[in-house]
Amino acid sequence: MNITRQLSDFASQKTNTVIPQSAMRMMQLSLLDWAVVGMAGRDEPVSRITREMVLEEAGATHASLIGHETRVPARAAALANGATSHALDYDDTHFAHIGHPSVAVIPAALAVAETSGADAAAMQEAALIGVEASVRVGVWLGRDHYQTGFHQTGTAGAFGAALAAARLMGLDAQGCAMALGLVATRASGLKSQFGTMGKPFNAGLAASNGVEAAMLVARGFEANPDALESAQGFGPTHAGQGLVEGLEGLGQDWLFETVSHKFHACCHGLHAALEAGLTLAPLNAEQIARIEVTTHPRWMTVCNQIAPMSGLGAKFSYGTVLAMQILGHDTAVLDSYSAAVCADPAVKALRDRVYISADDAVAETATRLRVVLQNGTVLNATHDLNAPMTLDLRQQKIQSKARSLIGAEQADRLWSVISAQTDLAQLTAILRSPK
Amino acid sequence: MNITRQLSDFASQKTNTVIPQSAMRMMQLSLLDWAVVGMAGRDEPVSRITREMVLEEAGATHASLIGHETRVPARAAALANGATSHALDYDDTHFAHIGHPSVAVIPAALAVAETSGADAAAMQEAALIGVEASVRVGVWLGRDHYQTGFHQTGTAGAFGAALAAARLMGLDAQGCAMALGLVATRASGLKSQFGTMGKPFNAGLAASNGVEAAMLVARGFEANPDALESAQGFGPTHAGQGLVEGLEGLGQDWLFETVSHKFHACCHGLHAALEAGLTLAPLNAEQIARIEVTTHPRWMTVCNQIAPMSGLGAKFSYGTVLAMQILGHDTAVLDSYSAAVCADPAVKALRDRVYISADDAVAETATRLRVVLQNGTVLNATHDLNAPMTLDLRQQKIQSKARSLIGAEQADRLWSVISAQTDLAQLTAILRSPK
Repeated sequence: MNITRQLSDFASQKTNTVIPQSAMRMMQLSLLDWAVVGMAGRDEPVSRITREMVLEEAGATHASLIGHETRVPARAAALANGATSHALDYDDTHFAHIGHPSVAVIPAALAVAETSGADAAAMQEAALIGVEASVRVGVWLGRDHYQTGFHQTGTAGAFGAALAAARLMGLDAQGCAMALGLVATRASGLKSQFGTMGKPFNAGLAASNGVEAAMLVARGFEANPDALESAQGFGPTHAGQGLVEGLEGLGQDWLFETVSHKFHACCHGLHAALEAGLTLAPLNAEQIARIEVTTHPRWMTVCNQIAPMSGLGAKFSYGTVLAMQILGHDTAVLDSYSAAVCADPAVKALRDRVYISADDAVAETATRLRVVLQNGTVLNATHDLNAPMTLDLRQQKIQSKARSLIGAEQADRLWSVISAQTDLAQLTAILRSPK
Repeated sequence: MNITRQLSDFASQKTNTVIPQSAMRMMQLSLLDWAVVGMAGRDEPVSRITREMVLEEAGATHASLIGHETRVPARAAALANGATSHALDYDDTHFAHIGHPSVAVIPAALAVAETSGADAAAMQEAALIGVEASVRVGVWLGRDHYQTGFHQTGTAGAFGAALAAARLMGLDAQGCAMALGLVATRASGLKSQFGTMGKPFNAGLAASNGVEAAMLVARGFEANPDALESAQGFGPTHAGQGLVEGLEGLGQDWLFETVSHKFHACCHGLHAALEAGLTLAPLNAEQIARIEVTTHPRWMTVCNQIAPMSGLGAKFSYGTVLAMQILGHDTAVLDSYSAAVCADPAVKALRDRVYISADDAVAETATRLRVVLQNGTVLNATHDLNAPMTLDLRQQKIQSKARSLIGAEQADRLWSVISAQTDLAQLTAILRSPK
C-alpha cells in the first residue's frame, strides 16, 4: 500500500472521482459553519495577534483575511485564517481520527483559489478532497499518533491542505506526491498546546504549511515524494500506525460525510455529555447528589480539567459544562464560558459533585450520564454524536447557529453565496468585513 | 530539571553570562563560514525557488536576502536564507547532537537584528546564544531523536533560533520560555529529506519558525511555556531522551566551541574518511584491491549511498568521495560533485571496491580506513574530526575556503566587517550582492 500514491491519484483526478451530491452538500455546510465561526472569532486574541503579524509583513494582495479589508499573500492568509477559524474551538470535528478538518483545509483552499483565480465550484471541490484526504491520513496515522501527543488538526490537516492547494494549482499526481512529501517535513502540532492560543494556531500551521508545499512544488521544488510513509518518514517518526483502513474505499466512500458540527461552544469531547444532559432537563441542581460521567479514556487527557479558572479552561471541563447546563447557562453561546462562571459558587458546588471515569467500552463519540438525586432517584442518559442526523436537520441547526453568531442577515447571505457557488469574491467580501 | 526555564534564563540574561573571547571568535568564524557558503549557494535550485516564493510575496522591507537586493519580512528572509545557506551542505556541523547550528540560527538572528535595529555585536551575541542553545536542546533530545528520523538542524535548531530572536527583541525570561513553548508546536524536520532539496529547506524552517515564535510572543501570544519538556511536549512526542547532560555547565561551558567546519563539499559524515585518506596520499587507484571503511553505525543511514547518480547523491556516498579523492578530484570544490563523476567508469570501478562497515567502538567523529593493495600491502589510517585545531589554524582554513568559494576580495571584506563588528549594513550589503 502506498498512501502517497493513492492520495495523489485521488487529488489529481479531474474526471474519474465522482463526488456525490451528499458529500458536496456536507462540504457546503462545513464551509458555512467554518466562515461563521471564523467571523465570530475574528477579534479573539490569537486571531488579532496572528493577523497583525501578517499585516505588518503585508506584501502581495492575493488572498483575503477574515475580519480585515487588506489582502495578503496566500501563505499568510492561510496561517491567519486557520488560527482565526479555530480560535473559538467551535468548528467541525471528525472523530474517525479526532481532528478538525475544515479549519486546516478550507483556509488553504480559499487562499489558493483566490490567488490562482479558481471559481467557487473548484474551490469547494478542492476543499472537499482536502478534508477527505486529511481524515484518511489521520485514520492511517491512527490513535497511537493522537495519544502520543500529536494534534491531528495540525498534522493530518497539513497533508489535506497540501492536496487541496496542489489540486487548485493544477499539479498532476507526481506533483501532488511531491507536495505531500515536502509537507511531511513541516507538518506539526502538539496537543500540549490545548488550553492555550497554540491550539488554534496549529490549524493555521496546517493550512499555511499545505499552501507553502504546493507553491514550492509548483515552482520546481523536489522533496522526497515518499516522505509520508517511507523509513524515517512522517508516519514512522510520529508514532503513526500505518493503518490500511485509512485508504479503504477512497474515491468511493466519503468519510467526510460523517463529520460532526458543534452546537455547544466547547471542546467536542464534551458534547455527547451535554446532549445526554439535555435529555434529562430540567434538573434542579440542589436536588443532585452526584453526577457520574462515563466517557472514553481518550478524553481524559483532552477535556477533563477539574477546576478551570478561565473561560478557555471551562471549555475543556466536563464538570463545569454540565454544571453550567443544569444551572441555565446556555452552552451554545460564546460568552457563557468565562472566568466569572468558573468562580460562581453555584457552578463550583455542582461541578465538585461531578465524577468522571473512563471506560473503553464507551464509544469515543458517546458519553453515559448517571445522575443520583438526594432522594436516591437515579437518572440515566446516553448520547452518541454519531447518531444519524439528516442533512436537512443539520442544515437547519448550522443555520440557526450561524444566525446567533453573526446575525441573520450575514448568515443567510453566506449560505446563499455558498450554496449557489457564486463568484468567490462575494464570499470573500463577507469574510473580510471587520464586524 | 526544567530545560525551558534554564535556557530562558540563559538567553535573557544580559549581564551574568560571561561570554569568553574564544566562544565569540568561534561564532565569528562560523558567521564568516555561513555567509560564504550562503553566497556560494545562492543560485542553487532550492535557494532560487524559496527566494522567488518570498519575493513574490514581498511586503515589508525589513531584512536582507542572500543574493538579492530586495528586502523582505524577517520570517521570509529567515526561511530563504536558512535554505540558501544549507543548499551546498557545506556549512558547520556540531557532533554533540549532529546538527548544523549556524544555518538554523544565524538567519533568524540576522533577520531580527535588521528588523529591530540591533547592532552587529548584539546580533553576534544573540547568534552565539542561539547556536549554543540549539546544541544543548539537541543533546537533551539525544541520539534516539536523531535515529528515529528527526533532523536536529530543523528541530533543535528551531529552539535556538527562537531564543536568538527573542533575545534580540528584548523578551524577558518568561517571554523566552513562551517562545520556546510556541515553537515546540512548530519545530520539525525529517531526515527522510536527505538527498533532496528538503534537507536544506529544513534549516530555513528552523530559522523562520524561531523568528515567528518570538515575534508572536512579543505581540502577546500565549502558548504552553512548558511545551518542550511537558507531557505531550516536543521531547516526549519526538523520541526525546531528556538527557540532563544537555544542560550541564550551561552559561559556563560553551559547547559551540567544539563545532566543526567543513573543508570538503560533502556530508560531514564523510569528512573523517577523507581526512584519513589524505594521510595515505598519493594512492594509485589501479594498485588498490579494496578499501575497507569502518565508521560509526550512525552514518550508515545518513551518507552511505552505494551507487549515486547525481552530484547531490555523491555528497552522501563514502565510496564515491573516496574514489574521487584518490583519482584526483578536489573534494573541497563544489563542481567536483556531479552526475558526470558518478558515471565516470574509473570512479565507478574504484567505488565498487570500497566496503563500508559499522562499528560502534568507532567515535561518531572518526573513521578508520584499511587499504589493501593488489600486492598484499595493507595501509591503515584513522582520523577523528574532534582532534583539536587552534583557532588560528581554523581561521586560516576557513578564510582559504572563503576565498576559493567567493573570491578573495569579498572573502576578506566579509571577515573584516565580521571581526570588527562594524555596522550590520556593511555585512548585509555583501550578502545581498547577486554575484
